[in-house]
Amino acid sequence: MTISQRHLITRDLAAVAMGQKPADLILKNGKLVDVCTARVRPSCDIAVYKGFIALVGNSDHILIDADTKVIDVNGKYLCPGLIDSHMHVESSMVDLPSFAAGVLPHGTTTICPDIHEITNVLGMDALRLFKESAQGLPLKVLTAMPVCVPSLPGMEDAGASIGPDDVMTAYEQGLAFLQGEQMNFPGVIYGDETVHQITGHGLRAGKVLTGHYAGDDLNAGLNAYVASGMIADHETTTAEGAMARAQLGMVVQQRYGSAWLDLPNLITAITENPGVDTRFFTLVTDDVTPATIAHEGHLVRVVRKAVSLGLNPIAALQMATINAAQLLEQSQWIGSLTPGRAADILVVESLAEFEIAQVYSDGRLVAENRSMAVDMPEYRYPDWAVNTVYLNALTPDDFPITSASGPRVSARVIQLIPGSVNTLSTRVEMPVIEGQIKADPEKDIAKAGMFYRHKPGGAENSRALGLVSGTGFKPGCAYASTVSHDCHNLLVVGMDDDAMTLAANTLIDSKGGIVVVENGKVLAHLALPLGGLMSLGSVETAARGVTAIESAMVRIGCPHPAFEMTMSLLGLVVLGELRLSNRGLVEMKDGAAPEFVDLILF
Amino acid sequence: MTISQRHLITRDLAAVAMGQKPADLILKNGKLVDVCTARVRPSCDIAVYKGFIALVGNSDHILIDADTKVIDVNGKYLCPGLIDSHMHVESSMVDLPSFAAGVLPHGTTTICPDIHEITNVLGMDALRLFKESAQGLPLKVLTAMPVCVPSLPGMEDAGASIGPDDVMTAYEQGLAFLQGEQMNFPGVIYGDETVHQITGHGLRAGKVLTGHYAGDDLNAGLNAYVASGMIADHETTTAEGAMARAQLGMVVQQRYGSAWLDLPNLITAITENPGVDTRFFTLVTDDVTPATIAHEGHLVRVVRKAVSLGLNPIAALQMATINAAQLLEQSQWIGSLTPGRAADILVVESLAEFEIAQVYSDGRLVAENRSMAVDMPEYRYPDWAVNTVYLNALTPDDFPITSASGPRVSARVIQLIPGSVNTLSTRVEMPVIEGQIKADPEKDIAKAGMFYRHKPGGAENSRALGLVSGTGFKPGCAYASTVSHDCHNLLVVGMDDDAMTLAANTLIDSKGGIVVVENGKVLAHLALPLGGLMSLGSVETAARGVTAIESAMVRIGCPHPAFEMTMSLLGLVVLGELRLSNRGLVEMKDGAAPEFVDLILF
Repeated sequence: MTISQRHLITRDLAAVAMGQKPADLILKNGKLVDVCTARVRPSCDIAVYKGFIALVGNSDHILIDADTKVIDVNGKYLCPGLIDSHMHVESSMVDLPSFAAGVLPHGTTTICPDIHEITNVLGMDALRLFKESAQGLPLKVLTAMPVCVPSLPGMEDAGASIGPDDVMTAYEQGLAFLQGEQMNFPGVIYGDETVHQITGHGLRAGKVLTGHYAGDDLNAGLNAYVASGMIADHETTTAEGAMARAQLGMVVQQRYGSAWLDLPNLITAITENPGVDTRFFTLVTDDVTPATIAHEGHLVRVVRKAVSLGLNPIAALQMATINAAQLLEQSQWIGSLTPGRAADILVVESLAEFEIAQVYSDGRLVAENRSMAVDMPEYRYPDWAVNTVYLNALTPDDFPITSASGPRVSARVIQLIPGSVNTLSTRVEMPVIEGQIKADPEKDIAKAGMFYRHKPGGAENSRALGLVSGTGFKPGCAYASTVSHDCHNLLVVGMDDDAMTLAANTLIDSKGGIVVVENGKVLAHLALPLGGLMSLGSVETAARGVTAIESAMVRIGCPHPAFEMTMSLLGLVVLGELRLSNRGLVEMKDGAAPEFVDLILF
Repeated sequence: MTISQRHLITRDLAAVAMGQKPADLILKNGKLVDVCTARVRPSCDIAVYKGFIALVGNSDHILIDADTKVIDVNGKYLCPGLIDSHMHVESSMVDLPSFAAGVLPHGTTTICPDIHEITNVLGMDALRLFKESAQGLPLKVLTAMPVCVPSLPGMEDAGASIGPDDVMTAYEQGLAFLQGEQMNFPGVIYGDETVHQITGHGLRAGKVLTGHYAGDDLNAGLNAYVASGMIADHETTTAEGAMARAQLGMVVQQRYGSAWLDLPNLITAITENPGVDTRFFTLVTDDVTPATIAHEGHLVRVVRKAVSLGLNPIAALQMATINAAQLLEQSQWIGSLTPGRAADILVVESLAEFEIAQVYSDGRLVAENRSMAVDMPEYRYPDWAVNTVYLNALTPDDFPITSASGPRVSARVIQLIPGSVNTLSTRVEMPVIEGQIKADPEKDIAKAGMFYRHKPGGAENSRALGLVSGTGFKPGCAYASTVSHDCHNLLVVGMDDDAMTLAANTLIDSKGGIVVVENGKVLAHLALPLGGLMSLGSVETAARGVTAIESAMVRIGCPHPAFEMTMSLLGLVVLGELRLSNRGLVEMKDGAAPEFVDLILF
């Protein structure tokens, strides 16, 4: 029974509360964390009927029958299920059912996935796929409509592009619950017509519009952005930015992902300002790896971090529950343990450590002691969803960078910076040998190829080659991935054409994934057949797969932790300074507009 | 420009914020009360475009042109306009435009009128009338759908009755913004099918359902009520009841009307519990007389009272702004001074006294120094709205209470209790003189008549007579009113048939109102032609009219203050113990169901 059906059972809920009809479930003797008034109610019971809370208080009069489960929680805390109001499932490299199985034991009962990665691959079908694969899951999936697909139209080719009409269609067809992050903040504040058309469709449809404001201007720019309709944002990295947003009525989605660890820098806006009202602050994960989920948990990890940083545990819990529910305008359904709301209930040992003993979703025990207690429904993907790498097998002949000039040329090189999402556009003098520019392990210059892979014969089979420094790869080694933001074409980086060929073909065979090759051998291979982005296994399996990839990358010479994530952004042209798309090298620097540039300068 | 059109101007709002397009209005140098974070921002400006806030912060870069109004507020406070989330316009005895003109100078910029009084008279047409007469007003009118019309079906006749189908129709036709108070709380908690059908329609339509839970049971009963969908309530009279509601996720609409002065008893839930989150507490007026508005203000009077009771002024302001907006799920539109929201702005001298210097509604200066600065659009009412008293002139022959028994009989007498909404059902031995039971001023026993008045020949021209004690009326005096809750039939009370006839006919002539008669003369007469409930003049005029009625009542022997309000409830059968409807005497006592009873016992 979902919220849209609750009206059918209000008489039953009343009858259960009045003790005239048996409850399905009674949790007795809890310390209830009341996120509405920010207090703990000692010795409190909850009665549940058909997935909804019928009573919170004293349950002595509640009817029970043979089917009623009565659980004495024996003084443990009762907390609402956690709500992650901004995140991307794809970052965790598993499909939705496996994601649900991964995060439910950690108390996340509602997610708002902005699925712009898989939408870059599958377009509007991605929304239908998410809607279908969410059916029957004990996880509430409130999908956010991606609005920036591809990231930089005209300079790259994804599997689809999303325009204003698509956004309107998605709302009309009920494919999206809220509007995803509007990353094109310059387009918003400088009045780009298409961007504002999309915004307009969201406003007309009554959606909550989420933001991604990466600008430094907290006066004109931020005001322009909020005035345009975006009322939530996860992109600030400073306490000043956090407070500026909240003051402008924009909900601060304090981020603590696997790699973007902003929360400690933001939380001082609260901890150093006693008395500040925190209702406009939430907690989100944005992007977490499967390893983070497997080893540290999901949104609960952010709650724990906030408490460790000095935030009152109840305030931290409010940020992950009622505050998020109010942002989503869904506090009648989720975010608090109160009558008429969904029985998404966590039984928690202590508020400081937030160890979760049991997780109830819609009144059903779904996880216990960090493990799932129920099986997820299986979802069988259609072929078009798991067969998205449309490339014929490559050969070493696909990789030479040729030059009619010589014997030496100046070439543009993408310089990766370990631990940073940024790149530098550098120039390196390279020899031309037998008409080719070759990778040079000694100088740490690898070759890179970006191959369009989304449709058979699409984008004119376009591909482009470039040079990359900073990988540290040894001779004979290569890396390839179809997780290559945001277009997710096939990226191949290596010191050797044969190795690059093997890496590429391994992924073409496995219909996507990540692979590391050394001297003619596959060292590690994580198959990600769903859209070329996600595996069909568990979070734990994906975590092991990613760990194996990272170990292999260290072995082939790349010493930096999480460098795989750095590599995955090599093609994200919207970030500048120099990136590789399937159409060529894209440079964007010094505030200028992005432009295609030549690999070889002279 | 309304919120539904905001999507058309997001580019313009961004351009204004960026300093690329002139603003319409700039308020400079204010101390902005930021209700989102509960802090005051010193030296803050607001830029407005087409009624919406484009920027809050530093406006030095904002473009101005010849049409831009730039106002230096010189350190005064800038506060959001006040939102009254539960109230009845009819109680103030003026129509909507006059009400707007009455309350805007006091800073109320949004009201949620539950119009169940006039709906008892006009039915669904009342909703259409309110919608039309609200057009063009600088007051946001978010009408609540009345759901209890009449109060006790089958025991009285109103001008209409509202059933589940009407509720659904109202939502489908956009006639109501939220669901009005569900007064039939026993029907809710004991599962009455019709009541839950109405609730179901509200939930399916995604409405905010407001409550009226007058029960004492804060466990089973209150839980049953909230679980059924009502998420706001103004009916608690104790701090315990207030806290119980907030803990169950029900917004406490703390009431401080003209006669129902609950706030001081509720606010201790907050003032005596430091650290309690107050987001689930709001302030409402429910019912205020025109005199209260004219002399003390409107919702601002409640804010001031809350502050005088020890509440932090910012918390009090939050209760009348952002908390109400979040309850209504309209915080993207109203309730805070933030970008993209309506420019409903109060310029306030001090937060303690809350003296309002200027009121802006949608960016337009509408009131200054407690007076309106603009004219209200005139609304011309259709005849059916101002011609609702369908009774032929009465004669003294309409008033005799006859009895075939005698010479003495025992009669049921409605005993009014000054200062209380309650009555007692008493028995008094009365002489039968010439076949009649007559009023007896010496024993303080008056006669009362309730005459159906809504449709020509409707309800079979039904009327009923009864006996009333407690008025203190002198010989030769009478009172009549068409404001007779909830059916609003013509009530006549007096010591003399001629006086009662004159009182009744005066109101039949004036198409409704209130009148006091002494010895063949009209002492005071307030004409209320709109539905027989509301005048077409100003709040000040209505205030004088009510004051004149109350003075006249004192003169004819009724010493109690506000006794007119006590009289107006004489026919409210749902309250018990003994009341008079157009169908007869209705008794409801000792927890039994209401029943018709005989006036003469033997």
